[in-house]
Amino acid sequence: MIAIQDYYADHFAVCYGCGRLNDKGLHIKTFMNDAGETETRYTPDDKFNTMEGFVYGGLLASLVDCHGTGSASHAIARDKGLNIEPYNAPRCVTASLHVNYHKPTPMGVELRLKGVIKEVKGRKVTVGVELWAGEVMCVSGEVIAVEVLEAFTQTK
Amino acid sequence: MIAIQDYYADHFAVCYGCGRLNDKGLHIKTFMNDAGETETRYTPDDKFNTMEGFVYGGLLASLVDCHGTGSASHAIARDKGLNIEPYNAPRCVTASLHVNYHKPTPMGVELRLKGVIKEVKGRKVTVGVELWAGEVMCVSGEVIAVEVLEAFTQTK
Repeated sequence: MIAIQDYYADHFAVCYGCGRLNDKGLHIKTFMNDAGETETRYTPDDKFNTMEGFVYGGLLASLVDCHGTGSASHAIARDKGLNIEPYNAPRCVTASLHVNYHKPTPMGVELRLKGVIKEVKGRKVTVGVELWAGEVMCVSGEVIAVEVLEAFTQTK
Repeated sequence: MIAIQDYYADHFAVCYGCGRLNDKGLHIKTFMNDAGETETRYTPDDKFNTMEGFVYGGLLASLVDCHGTGSASHAIARDKGLNIEPYNAPRCVTASLHVNYHKPTPMGVELRLKGVIKEVKGRKVTVGVELWAGEVMCVSGEVIAVEVLEAFTQTK
């Protein structure tokens, strides 16, 4: 299995959350199995506290976000029958992000995000996300992601 | 006007997003005016790219999150008629976070978050949030925040 984020083109690979070329970033990496389910594993640094012993909700939202866009990129590549190689992976951005915090998320353990592709409609992908700490689902959410057209990077 | 985050008790003040005692954190600070509207101003560091020239959606979600909980804390203090002083401010955590990304958010400018208290129902506060870059509303969202009971910090 491959981490889709390692196959984004250079100008799409500077994201703080998941860009391989952002040397101060989180380097979130998302995999898809043969059944089309996606996974990200991440152990937060101690600075990402919310209160002593628990993980900051903004970091959890960031994990859901980049796991969602990574899952969407996998889904688009799969549906196009694309052979992913350096650096041709589709790149998605987030249109909307919804995060529900069910339980405080403990610090000091590896977190596991699971993604399910709910819908692919043209460039738009809806991804359902769960975030687990051990056997406890702490967070759930949904990301609507849209494939970026190359023209996006010309608009600044 | 006061930044509510400067008045959280020490054990509530280590949040990566808004804790005055987290020396690696973002130090988000939220003010409420006499009309009950809230504001946070924040200029992201360059590392928080999504693509060159644009701000990372996970950081924007973090801004909406801490602006939302800060706004909720202000609202609870106001409704209780609390005279805020060191360090008695109510502390809220996020139950749900919804963020809509309308436009790419430009890097290198001060961002302004506006909050409107939609409802206070016991310990639960619903806050509507808009994030503006100059004259452009780039992001909107809603935060449902809940006042923390002191017992929360005993559960880890």
